[in-house]
Amino acid sequence: MSKVVSREIHLTSRPDGMPVPENFKLVEKTLGPGEDEVLVRNLYMSIDPAMRPPLSNGQTPLDEPMGGGAIGKVVDSDNESYPVGCYVQHRFGFREYYLSKGDDLQVVKPEGEPLTTHLHILGGTGLTAYGGLLVTGELKDGENVFVSAAAGAVGSVVGQIARIKGCRVAGSCGSDEKVEYLLDELGFDYAFNYKTCSIAKELHIGLPEGIDVYFENVGGKHLDAACGQMRPLGRIPVCGMVSAYNNKGARSEGVTTLSNMIYNRVTMKGFVVYEFAHLRDQFLSDMRQWMSEGKIKYRETIMQGIDQAPLALIGLLGGENTGKMLVQLAEDN
Amino acid sequence: MSKVVSREIHLTSRPDGMPVPENFKLVEKTLGPGEDEVLVRNLYMSIDPAMRPPLSNGQTPLDEPMGGGAIGKVVDSDNESYPVGCYVQHRFGFREYYLSKGDDLQVVKPEGEPLTTHLHILGGTGLTAYGGLLVTGELKDGENVFVSAAAGAVGSVVGQIARIKGCRVAGSCGSDEKVEYLLDELGFDYAFNYKTCSIAKELHIGLPEGIDVYFENVGGKHLDAACGQMRPLGRIPVCGMVSAYNNKGARSEGVTTLSNMIYNRVTMKGFVVYEFAHLRDQFLSDMRQWMSEGKIKYRETIMQGIDQAPLALIGLLGGENTGKMLVQLAEDN
Repeated sequence: MSKVVSREIHLTSRPDGMPVPENFKLVEKTLGPGEDEVLVRNLYMSIDPAMRPPLSNGQTPLDEPMGGGAIGKVVDSDNESYPVGCYVQHRFGFREYYLSKGDDLQVVKPEGEPLTTHLHILGGTGLTAYGGLLVTGELKDGENVFVSAAAGAVGSVVGQIARIKGCRVAGSCGSDEKVEYLLDELGFDYAFNYKTCSIAKELHIGLPEGIDVYFENVGGKHLDAACGQMRPLGRIPVCGMVSAYNNKGARSEGVTTLSNMIYNRVTMKGFVVYEFAHLRDQFLSDMRQWMSEGKIKYRETIMQGIDQAPLALIGLLGGENTGKMLVQLAEDN
Repeated sequence: MSKVVSREIHLTSRPDGMPVPENFKLVEKTLGPGEDEVLVRNLYMSIDPAMRPPLSNGQTPLDEPMGGGAIGKVVDSDNESYPVGCYVQHRFGFREYYLSKGDDLQVVKPEGEPLTTHLHILGGTGLTAYGGLLVTGELKDGENVFVSAAAGAVGSVVGQIARIKGCRVAGSCGSDEKVEYLLDELGFDYAFNYKTCSIAKELHIGLPEGIDVYFENVGGKHLDAACGQMRPLGRIPVCGMVSAYNNKGARSEGVTTLSNMIYNRVTMKGFVVYEFAHLRDQFLSDMRQWMSEGKIKYRETIMQGIDQAPLALIGLLGGENTGKMLVQLAEDN
């Protein structure tokens, strides 16, 4: 079996505030598969807001390769479950090659859709939106839905599923171009640029009856505005609070409207995607159906090369992406 | 049938901040029961933190008698379901007499316990604690529980039920005397005076493993400290946020630790007592059992006379009570 040189990203210091390139280092390693091992050449890796808190809270170790969702192609294998040439998905991004014992790989078989969709609308990102909205959020047809970071990978799926369910949907985002994208391409009923308006006023206009489900991606001022406008028995599935992630202890700006939870009997609930693993088949079936009907659209923001991975994460946290932020690590050949 | 002069409390202006006596007026009315009517002489009325927000948000009408839980004795009746001399409970406190058509009264039959207990540990206050902790809070035996306003009517029952369920219980309150009461009389494992310490530090000491259930009565700084220390799958039943009630829009001090809800999958849920109406028989059976075993104790702070009712509410909001705040309106004779 052959040996390859793999470049990988290490975290070398913990960011204080927005991460900077100096918090990361590109390291070269030489890998060669041994008995029963599988060598995966990573093609694409996912960049997610949830990667930020572990950089500071200690969960991401220093001076080791970082992790995250990725899809690659098997290029060398001593395991017949993963023959050379097959596509696999795993949690070992931030590196060009991954050497596996085969117990942490999942075969991916595209059914005509681009491979990258398995890292977002057909992957964990899509399942996060689907489960968070329908299970944690207990969405009912025709309700009033607000989603923040609505032009992001999760938010854009949340808004489109809510539209499919006959809901009135308002979304917030960080640029006028994204507002146009939400309204013109994704079919949102209302959208606004939170950087240039009062969130509370926009919500009054966009969802004048109040909010039944607020799909929370941002926290801080967004939650402060939305919580005050929750309707009776409203739900706030908490997927993320990206506005807080660069602060010490992931502290958000202060939320002052939580007393509305009492009289309106509002439920706010944090969730993580693995709660929805049992829904995977139904999720894939629904999503493929909706995609084929043109009801679910997506965009990708793709950066090139392992050396760009830290900048992709920094860019995501700054809102530079529309739709899914990915890094392409190699050509699929 | 005879006529009586009844004095009652009206709200005449909406408080801006802490209510002041000038927001209220004592008004005299003459009442005489007509056909099918029941005249109730109120003996005791309940004073609750939840009475504060309606004074400002418009739900309590101006220049009409205020409402709230009360217990009285039937003194004149043209309805055989409510004979003269029987005790009845209703929602028409803040007045010395109540004239009913009989459709809004509930007969109270004490089984040896003081009549007043039906306005707290055996009434809505107790059911609020019981349902909020066991149903909304989904308490499991042996968990780590924090309750704020722990020396208040609801909080003191919450803490004692949690102790009965084998939990480790920490409570906050607003004076050193109340700390002693929680530790020495109610059997709390840990108690602190939030006015003279860091809530977050005290919680680290009192519940070093973190918090499974935070029974929320206060909001603001209390929630900020507690939410940051919630354990995986922790629950925050939200009963009240008294720290916010005197602020415009019942806005609390800012809560900045809500991102902990995500990774620890915490649920925060507002509730109101009528959700637990179906549990009333089980609740009464459990509470009477625990009272007979000496496992549930209580205190009452009783003010005298209808003219003191506004001061009782103002005093409650200022934390002057230990246990249940009541106003006695008449002798039971």
